[in-house]
Amino acid sequence: MHTTCYGGASETAIAIDDETLNQPETAANDEKSESWSQLAWTHLECVRNSSSAPLIQCITNLVSMDLVANVLLSAGASPGMIHSVEEIPDFTPKVRALYINVGTLTPAWLPPMKMATAVANDSKRPWVLDPVAAGASAFRLKACLELLTLGPTVVRGNGTEILVLFNGSANANFKGADSMHESTDAFEVAKSLARTYGCIVAVSGAVDIVTDGERVVGAKNGVPMLQKITETGCAVTALIAAFVAVTPSQPFEATAAALSVFGVAGELGMCSAGGPASLRMHLIDALHSLDRIAVLQRVKIANVSWYVS
Amino acid sequence: MHTTCYGGASETAIAIDDETLNQPETAANDEKSESWSQLAWTHLECVRNSSSAPLIQCITNLVSMDLVANVLLSAGASPGMIHSVEEIPDFTPKVRALYINVGTLTPAWLPPMKMATAVANDSKRPWVLDPVAAGASAFRLKACLELLTLGPTVVRGNGTEILVLFNGSANANFKGADSMHESTDAFEVAKSLARTYGCIVAVSGAVDIVTDGERVVGAKNGVPMLQKITETGCAVTALIAAFVAVTPSQPFEATAAALSVFGVAGELGMCSAGGPASLRMHLIDALHSLDRIAVLQRVKIANVSWYVS
Amino acid sequence: MHTTCYGGASETAIAIDDETLNQPETAANDEKSESWSQLAWTHLECVRNSSSAPLIQCITNLVSMDLVANVLLSAGASPGMIHSVEEIPDFTPKVRALYINVGTLTPAWLPPMKMATAVANDSKRPWVLDPVAAGASAFRLKACLELLTLGPTVVRGNGTEILVLFNGSANANFKGADSMHESTDAFEVAKSLARTYGCIVAVSGAVDIVTDGERVVGAKNGVPMLQKITETGCAVTALIAAFVAVTPSQPFEATAAALSVFGVAGELGMCSAGGPASLRMHLIDALHSLDRIAVLQRVKIANVSWYVS
Repeated sequence: MHTTCYGGASETAIAIDDETLNQPETAANDEKSESWSQLAWTHLECVRNSSSAPLIQCITNLVSMDLVANVLLSAGASPGMIHSVEEIPDFTPKVRALYINVGTLTPAWLPPMKMATAVANDSKRPWVLDPVAAGASAFRLKACLELLTLGPTVVRGNGTEILVLFNGSANANFKGADSMHESTDAFEVAKSLARTYGCIVAVSGAVDIVTDGERVVGAKNGVPMLQKITETGCAVTALIAAFVAVTPSQPFEATAAALSVFGVAGELGMCSAGGPASLRMHLIDALHSLDRIAVLQRVKIANVSWYVS
Repeated sequence: MHTTCYGGASETAIAIDDETLNQPETAANDEKSESWSQLAWTHLECVRNSSSAPLIQCITNLVSMDLVANVLLSAGASPGMIHSVEEIPDFTPKVRALYINVGTLTPAWLPPMKMATAVANDSKRPWVLDPVAAGASAFRLKACLELLTLGPTVVRGNGTEILVLFNGSANANFKGADSMHESTDAFEVAKSLARTYGCIVAVSGAVDIVTDGERVVGAKNGVPMLQKITETGCAVTALIAAFVAVTPSQPFEATAAALSVFGVAGELGMCSAGGPASLRMHLIDALHSLDRIAVLQRVKIANVSWYVS
Repeated sequence: MHTTCYGGASETAIAIDDETLNQPETAANDEKSESWSQLAWTHLECVRNSSSAPLIQCITNLVSMDLVANVLLSAGASPGMIHSVEEIPDFTPKVRALYINVGTLTPAWLPPMKMATAVANDSKRPWVLDPVAAGASAFRLKACLELLTLGPTVVRGNGTEILVLFNGSANANFKGADSMHESTDAFEVAKSLARTYGCIVAVSGAVDIVTDGERVVGAKNGVPMLQKITETGCAVTALIAAFVAVTPSQPFEATAAALSVFGVAGELGMCSAGGPASLRMHLIDALHSLDRIAVLQRVKIANVSWYVS
């Protein structure tokens, strides 16, 4: 049985295999098939129960700093909001993961971003890139493409951002940070991008797509109103960094788990929300108190395949 | 019948004409007199139902970024928080309006502000200026006056800020971003400023005053506790930018409508609020869910005249 | 009778003298012994009932700006978020107190910080230092130590930050902005630091410690979940600045009162909170509506002495 998810303007759709729903796609099929929801719970527990809260360095945009830090704290991680080139050589080796977000990019922010990724690479620390509004300008696109070549562990964007990175040129129809494309539109380009740069690529949308270039899963958690809260995309990318920090050998699984767990927190938050601002509050509260039963019952991650209808 | 509103320390008052309450003052009186409340609703619907959410570029102060972005999203607009001179030539022509706010001004922020206003002017895009704490220093006042000469569509400030702009010199008694003057104190100087610079001038206060230099209306929505939330003034100026973006030929009406709609959201939010922080949350929620009936019942905009009691 | 508070890894403890609980420790014991809780209420009332809201200049980190401004407003103060060297000579003489926070330090932020402290000193204005993550890098530690020599009225940090300042060298085990030490670990070094720099030193923790080098009090208000909200430490330091602003001759008492009042707001907020984000909201609401009875009943400040168990 397949669930067909409408793929937006391009008349494409993804098929989510309900038979494998919540079954992690593993390279070796003879491994014990731990369910995706159990795996998502395990990742969250790793963040929470780390001997000390995993320190995540965030070089993120000015709009997102408060939300990013609070989401990390609520999940059990420790945000390190430090971005000076004078501090990176001392500080970055101490962190468990690095988060780079180009939202309010200026030329002055690029040297610390690049230096931090270099130190993270040298220190074998995973790092995660959020190419916010990658097509907003030639300057921004060039910066995002440069950062891509520096070897991120994970890249997460919306459909438009991932398509723009793939095309490598500014999208003439670009309309800001909000996506004009469904995640499913970016399915094939995400796989290609993942293979080209040797990283995990995640595409947010009604269905979040995660791929390592071969495997692809879709995560179906979350609520539409999240799009009415600024920087939720940036916040979930920070959560990916926290999940990857504690399971650096499983960035594919960690990314899908983080997207789904954030979406579950959004679903639970939506139960009490009267609008975007109360949803934001209840989401953070829910992320803090999320228990095993809610995660096992709600996480929806499945293998996906692609077709044109 | 007149409602007399006490005008503060200067013993002045404005007269709000109740007979014309909620009747828009139009240049041509023989036009069908659509009520101001209906007009406010129409403006809000234009923002929400735009074929795509109107993209508003915000070059705003560091304190306000989160609130400004969330207020724009809740109203149905799309915030573009981009301020690099490297990006403005590419990005600004794509936006529907530009918002400039000098709250945390440093010399480095002036070139992008000026460049963005120039590109907005060239692209026939409206832009809105918030001269936060205009009298805090000679540097800031000079910057605000320079920005004024670049042709904003709308300027919104509190009474003190508008008076300082008019006087063109730092106010020796200035006490920070909070206003020491009622909006009504700035009535005549607002008209004069509007005529001098050919723009709409809005003065926030217990009664918000809006003038194009000839017409003057007062908007009486809002609650006092809004003053206990940081950056609500900045947020309402961003909302003005969104309203002007969708009705660029009616900046006078759009400004009054935005001030009143924001105030109505504050009134509705106050019904559920237990203090400033919950008011902030409920205001954003209310702005998101504001319906026609609430707008029609609550918007209070009226022609005003001025006298010294 | 003594209440023994476990002092963490170093197997030390502080003794809080319950007999003097809520009795301010005064140099002259024959003075009328106004209780600490009454004193805390008086300080809060001074902020609220100042002829105009006390203007507090905040040169604070990018993550904290929104929370810091809202906490100050809720307490009855007026935040002045101005940090440009072009403005400081005009603006800083007008403020009642200055708040310096190094959270997102870069070299560009040091000149305005130093200039503002110099102007504050010249203008006889108290200023308060928050040495966030003082040990994160050699650059940051050097900056914090330089700021210390410029004569802050109060320094507030967590145990790790205060220890790092004392040691004057980066802590090799440093793990970001979260403290690895209980406030009680920093008891003796806080006294020493206070004597060396002639300032009040406050150490946040399960028990907040305040010392002027001779006197020491512990404040036991607050809830553990405050640690799951970003920048609450920065926010309480801003509140200290507001309290010191209105009672500049009593910085020791003002600091203890601010820490306790913030903690009481957290306790009251916790009654309605479902997690960190709602706690943040309810804390601000509670700070705004805090009444005399709640302060008198809840403030827990006591003289402390130190021993090794």
